[in-house]
Amino acid sequence: MENARQSRSLLLIAMAGFPIVEPGTDLGHIICGLARTNGPEFVDQDIVVVAQKVVSKAEGRYVDLANVRPGSDALALAEKVQKDPRLVEVILAESRRVIRHRPGVLIVEHRLGFVTANAGVDQSNVDPTKGAEPVLLLPSDPDASAQRLHEQLRREFGKAIGVVISDSFGRAWRIGTVGVALGAAGVPSVRNLRGRPDIHGRRLRVSETGFADEIAAAASLLMGQADEATPVVILRGLAWSEPSLPAAALMRRPQEDLFR
Amino acid sequence: MENARQSRSLLLIAMAGFPIVEPGTDLGHIICGLARTNGPEFVDQDIVVVAQKVVSKAEGRYVDLANVRPGSDALALAEKVQKDPRLVEVILAESRRVIRHRPGVLIVEHRLGFVTANAGVDQSNVDPTKGAEPVLLLPSDPDASAQRLHEQLRREFGKAIGVVISDSFGRAWRIGTVGVALGAAGVPSVRNLRGRPDIHGRRLRVSETGFADEIAAAASLLMGQADEATPVVILRGLAWSEPSLPAAALMRRPQEDLFR
Repeated sequence: MENARQSRSLLLIAMAGFPIVEPGTDLGHIICGLARTNGPEFVDQDIVVVAQKVVSKAEGRYVDLANVRPGSDALALAEKVQKDPRLVEVILAESRRVIRHRPGVLIVEHRLGFVTANAGVDQSNVDPTKGAEPVLLLPSDPDASAQRLHEQLRREFGKAIGVVISDSFGRAWRIGTVGVALGAAGVPSVRNLRGRPDIHGRRLRVSETGFADEIAAAASLLMGQADEATPVVILRGLAWSEPSLPAAALMRRPQEDLFR
Repeated sequence: MENARQSRSLLLIAMAGFPIVEPGTDLGHIICGLARTNGPEFVDQDIVVVAQKVVSKAEGRYVDLANVRPGSDALALAEKVQKDPRLVEVILAESRRVIRHRPGVLIVEHRLGFVTANAGVDQSNVDPTKGAEPVLLLPSDPDASAQRLHEQLRREFGKAIGVVISDSFGRAWRIGTVGVALGAAGVPSVRNLRGRPDIHGRRLRVSETGFADEIAAAASLLMGQADEATPVVILRGLAWSEPSLPAAALMRRPQEDLFR
């Protein structure tokens, strides 16, 4: 049965009162505490969306550019893209390969498979106490981080609560960033609607949806991008019967991709 | 002030009871009627998301493949992509150019600028009373359709209600379709967060978000893809101060795009 027939509404709540996150901060502990004090009581198939930035901060994924010595590849590429060679060194270290570049733009395949600008390395909105020139990398293994949080929420609340770790990525062809899932646990990141009958009783041909990406995009509407005060959003009202699939399932294999 | 600080929750409601849509159906009339009988009372900055398929159907955007005679370009390309040459003829007529193709895959730049598979021409879920082998094209001018609906809602309810016409598109690099905006009125389809201070008081560098695309993705979670019974979703809880921008603003210009 089609999910939309079961779920007539969807509620997203941005959890207020999130503290500044330091390396080692137990995000699950904070989320559980906020949920207990000012959130709704969790039910199965609630989903908690957590902004990548606080996960990276909790994992201490800082690099201080002041300590980076760029290699020859980074120096050559930095000249082409007109970026700080030390930043380019950090980006290359996080990447499998460069996909496209031009002055001001460096799009790579991140070591985890994401195609994104600057390997997600973030120079904005980074705590200046973390080094002379700190930048923040993506979480080391966002699916694993999501899984740990999923298990922590289950222990705390006894419910199967989905977890999505989100970021905002630019796209090919279209202007503007949208929320995407970097990591997920307890949700089917890709849902395969193939073969479900349409309303005329015929078979759908292909209908694979990027479920966790749509969840991240929805949460992004509430998070805003400049406002770290609401890095956690709870979604309620979705339902699914498929097994969980990590966000790695959203990565198109390079050999099956026409655009890299 | 950051939107996320104002809006702590976001509610999406799928409007039940949507009838089968025929060419000439007044969608605005149906939406107004459903909203009056079982929707919430509209307030300014509510957003109505309408699935492309019902807009196309109301506009009678059917083509009967039985009446299509493929030209030589379509015949040659059809062999390469292993598709019906008549369908390829229809796709090419809707397109500016072919972006990528391989057996089973035909990605084009639609005449309106969208890069998408098969120019959005849909063979699934199409009313078989509309021809021997009917297919359904995208709306002829989705921004104009959204604008008309926006004005109709304003006349009916006296509120400034945003309208987004949504579809589900595949992406480069990532598996699965996600909701995107084909047309929009009364909302800023792209929001420019450039220059807003981050929580450390520094300036953000670049932060253009695909606001209407995120709205479409959120609505897609409730619409489902096989279920035409809920082609309209109301979003409540977003706020913005920017002027409206049509969905055309989401189109990256080909000469500024590294992936076509």
